[in-house]
Amino acid sequence: MNMMKKESRVVYQAAKEVDLSAGSSQTYLRANVKAPRVAGFLVKVFAWFLESRIFGTLILYILKRDNLIHKLVSNAEMEEAPVYVPIHPFDDEEEQDVKQVGADLSPPELVQQATECLPQSLGKSQKTFNGLNTSFRYWTISDYSRAYTSGDVTPRTVVERLIAAIRESSTPSFQMSFFINYDAEDILKQATESTLRYERGVPISALDGVPIAIKDEIDCLPYPTTGGTKWLHKLRPCTDDACCVKCLRLCGAIIVGKTNMHELGAGTSGINPHYGATRNPYDRSKIAGGSSSGSAAVVASGLCPVALGVDGGGSVRMPASLCGVVGFKPTFGRVLHSGVLPLNWTVGMVGILAGTIEDAFIVYAAISARLPPHQPTVSPKVYFPLLNPTKPISGIKLAKYGEWFNDCSDDIRECCSNALDRLHKQYGWKTVEVTVPEIEVMRLAHYTTIGSECTASLSNSLENLDYKELGWDVRVALAVYGSFSSKEYIKAQRIRNRQMQFHMNIFAHADVIVSPTTGVTAYSIFDDALQTGELDYINGAALVRYSIAGNFLGLPAVSVPVGYDRAGLPIGLQLIGKPWSEATLIHIAFALQELYVSEYREPEVYYDVLNQQK
Amino acid sequence: MNMMKKESRVVYQAAKEVDLSAGSSQTYLRANVKAPRVAGFLVKVFAWFLESRIFGTLILYILKRDNLIHKLVSNAEMEEAPVYVPIHPFDDEEEQDVKQVGADLSPPELVQQATECLPQSLGKSQKTFNGLNTSFRYWTISDYSRAYTSGDVTPRTVVERLIAAIRESSTPSFQMSFFINYDAEDILKQATESTLRYERGVPISALDGVPIAIKDEIDCLPYPTTGGTKWLHKLRPCTDDACCVKCLRLCGAIIVGKTNMHELGAGTSGINPHYGATRNPYDRSKIAGGSSSGSAAVVASGLCPVALGVDGGGSVRMPASLCGVVGFKPTFGRVLHSGVLPLNWTVGMVGILAGTIEDAFIVYAAISARLPPHQPTVSPKVYFPLLNPTKPISGIKLAKYGEWFNDCSDDIRECCSNALDRLHKQYGWKTVEVTVPEIEVMRLAHYTTIGSECTASLSNSLENLDYKELGWDVRVALAVYGSFSSKEYIKAQRIRNRQMQFHMNIFAHADVIVSPTTGVTAYSIFDDALQTGELDYINGAALVRYSIAGNFLGLPAVSVPVGYDRAGLPIGLQLIGKPWSEATLIHIAFALQELYVSEYREPEVYYDVLNQQK
Repeated sequence: MNMMKKESRVVYQAAKEVDLSAGSSQTYLRANVKAPRVAGFLVKVFAWFLESRIFGTLILYILKRDNLIHKLVSNAEMEEAPVYVPIHPFDDEEEQDVKQVGADLSPPELVQQATECLPQSLGKSQKTFNGLNTSFRYWTISDYSRAYTSGDVTPRTVVERLIAAIRESSTPSFQMSFFINYDAEDILKQATESTLRYERGVPISALDGVPIAIKDEIDCLPYPTTGGTKWLHKLRPCTDDACCVKCLRLCGAIIVGKTNMHELGAGTSGINPHYGATRNPYDRSKIAGGSSSGSAAVVASGLCPVALGVDGGGSVRMPASLCGVVGFKPTFGRVLHSGVLPLNWTVGMVGILAGTIEDAFIVYAAISARLPPHQPTVSPKVYFPLLNPTKPISGIKLAKYGEWFNDCSDDIRECCSNALDRLHKQYGWKTVEVTVPEIEVMRLAHYTTIGSECTASLSNSLENLDYKELGWDVRVALAVYGSFSSKEYIKAQRIRNRQMQFHMNIFAHADVIVSPTTGVTAYSIFDDALQTGELDYINGAALVRYSIAGNFLGLPAVSVPVGYDRAGLPIGLQLIGKPWSEATLIHIAFALQELYVSEYREPEVYYDVLNQQK
Repeated sequence: MNMMKKESRVVYQAAKEVDLSAGSSQTYLRANVKAPRVAGFLVKVFAWFLESRIFGTLILYILKRDNLIHKLVSNAEMEEAPVYVPIHPFDDEEEQDVKQVGADLSPPELVQQATECLPQSLGKSQKTFNGLNTSFRYWTISDYSRAYTSGDVTPRTVVERLIAAIRESSTPSFQMSFFINYDAEDILKQATESTLRYERGVPISALDGVPIAIKDEIDCLPYPTTGGTKWLHKLRPCTDDACCVKCLRLCGAIIVGKTNMHELGAGTSGINPHYGATRNPYDRSKIAGGSSSGSAAVVASGLCPVALGVDGGGSVRMPASLCGVVGFKPTFGRVLHSGVLPLNWTVGMVGILAGTIEDAFIVYAAISARLPPHQPTVSPKVYFPLLNPTKPISGIKLAKYGEWFNDCSDDIRECCSNALDRLHKQYGWKTVEVTVPEIEVMRLAHYTTIGSECTASLSNSLENLDYKELGWDVRVALAVYGSFSSKEYIKAQRIRNRQMQFHMNIFAHADVIVSPTTGVTAYSIFDDALQTGELDYINGAALVRYSIAGNFLGLPAVSVPVGYDRAGLPIGLQLIGKPWSEATLIHIAFALQELYVSEYREPEVYYDVLNQQK
């Protein structure tokens, strides 16, 4: 480690900016091979040395350094991603009850198209809460939009309540640790502009004035992007909004700050030693899950109908499940990743946390837009689902792998099995029993992959970092992450190939794969973990048990709340779809949600920022 | 190393054969996480240990072993390739003077289509050699085909001469070390069948009866596939022909044996301690170049008009250049790789060594066929060039990076510059001066990639191998190959992304990139290298200097002979084309060859197996 620090390295200019003309200032580097010709006995001696464990390591280190591999490759800095990402070929398969929308529409146009696909029957919110006889239901984007349009409430009023709620949630008696950063002034400014638009009768879209929180792994002005650390933003200043944030702003949404997360996304508990352990709105003594802990918790507590997260190993779906909200991860490549911290390149995806699947759909529509300068979309056609509660999608086949499905707590197993029973009874859908081989192998291979990519991404920063700035659990994670050889990484990619084949074969006979979202519900936050974080790989493995295919294979997946355990903690059912089949996935999730919406319970910590008495 | 040997590992069944039904015998492996929950001070202690160089390595080893990463990932055996390969999107760009052929034609139909694209003016060979006033020229596939059809000679007669020539070349006074294996009986049997077909007037294609040699890295019955080693074939028996060999057999070609190669393709000299150093037909004291040394040398010495090689780092183009023949490497993915030793997955490609570009074209046509069961082709359309010496392709723009172009021996520089001058004068083509940045970086990143992939591919075999069976230079290479971390491999892939952008930007303004094929001509074989091999990284770097883009970026490339150095050793000019632009590349190579064909010299070791006096 110390040897490394002394070594020089090269910082490459962005490839797209490099001058390739004859007059370029790029210098031609002659191969400067530091190795005399050796043959005969000397070759043997050299081979023996190299093959010895101690001398070999040292000689190879010197060899690679002297021949500039360290400087030009291993330690080089550059912005380019590795060339290979799990992009699926677009297969224009016929889907049920969908409409095709233009691939080049603007975010507000896409939001308009999406809202037109929603059930229009209600006219206005049928259910009142804060009392009376009806069950709990989250306010939706449509509720916000209608309330603003009717003049019942203004965006300005909503964010004033929101800011007050954030402040209250941060007091010692709550310690919810929802946000890493929020700027009341910036929020009020956006709300004022939105309010003016409504006053003038020209809201931009259904998202105008809707408060949306952003995981602190996604660039979003005026905030630094900490990635849950105390140092990353100092090395990598945030200079622009991420692409997905730009989309939301173009729709008029109010960005209300940067949510808390597990440090570097390198854990699943959401216990952050620097910014606090995000607490579960259903039970303050429990974790919210991670790594998008804050984004799940702000939606669950009613602060925002929607928040953005990033899902590299279930990091959107797991906290969504633990906090009783919807977590939606689109197909790899569907949402442009520019402006998201490159903690990995092949498994992470922007995802959406929302109170309802309809809201996840609207925001999915907005952020899947291709902003100019037009980046090519890998899916030349875009389909939106035509949602209709009186005419749910029919003939759906749910693939279920029994042993895996059942490898969870009793309450989760019962609850998720009930959900399947209801789907059978209510809609006549069928379950296809299948085997998904090597699931545990996939989890290990995914861990090898995300760990290796995280190391390759952060190595240059970490080298010059005072390790005291890192949380202890993350120090442990980084030590393991950095231990993988290229052989191990490549083997993990071969396992990926196998799993891709397995899953595609299963999808030949089923529309989605169903499973619980997590193997356990939210567990307790212990005091000894607050400062150091904790290493709880057993609970961690149970949390990610069902998440990996979505990331490792780039498949779309969604978690929908389907009940509560004995302690009243939420449980989610996961649906994993075919590549690019978001429309069908939303259809299925919507039908599922319809069966449960009357049973949802109000969280312990809940702020009614839209409907509060004026 | 010894610790590793004791560890268990899993051998995975081929993914495509795994039963995914509910009744599958696949067992569900519960996550067996070996790690207690740890928080507080213990987390700190654990982090400190992990971060220490000595304890850390040991603890990480134990952690990864106990949590089955070694067994299920690192040391697992499986047949699947890593999921990511440098497949380029097919861009159906308009090319000059081409005809489209069906993507689903059989190998003989493709050969027929290709021969119809050749200049038909000659009718029969115009030039006689073995004397008289004319310069040297290799017999072509058309010459063979015409001679057989006319009855001037039979395939049987040709292979009898061929077998005699191989025997002579193996005697102590020659020691050419062309072949690792050849079976006279098998060759005669094929020739007899071909002779019968000609007698009956029903030859299968222009390739019927044409002798073709196969690099011993490609599966080909009845031979073992040694990869130039003494052991690999014992661990990996050859049970079928490789796809490209099947294509050739379907065309009636006579497979004449397995050519010598650098052990495991892990070097560029072609000096093999087990099977001898392949000698250069233009000067027996010089190397033939590698790793497809035997394939280049058998073509150069006139034994076969064509041979197959594999090009993972210039391994077809370099020996072609050193031996004065054409070396052609198609776009990555153009030729199916099944049945080729998986020494890497993302840089190697079957390539063709031939006396003329026309012959390389015919064999390219044959082996790019998709055999049933039909594998999808990534290029939905196939174009063949319409070659016409009186109407060469026009308006070609040649990109040249001066500093790189000139980084070679004086003779090569002069010779290759002259070639460009001739192209300008003769055809009015233009040179576009450009900069190709970071070429040396690309060489190192490619080395990191091929080394890592080779290690991942061979690790299971190497673990149980008696290292005494390995050549000494390969032991050194494998020690370096095995030293790369996943971070280094991933960084190398990021460099690949950069280079892909650079090259695509250059191709926006040029049809091909031109360079010498190698930085040096064939160098001497010293006696001290014969048993141990040699480590000559300086000459090695000069040999591969111009080859890397073809492999690392999957671009098609061809080497054409354009003269000789002062010592009479051949020099090649390389053309690197856009993805899938083989038709244009062959057009350009053909026009170039036309300027030089009258100046080719007869090698020191040359066998006239077709035209010898009866």
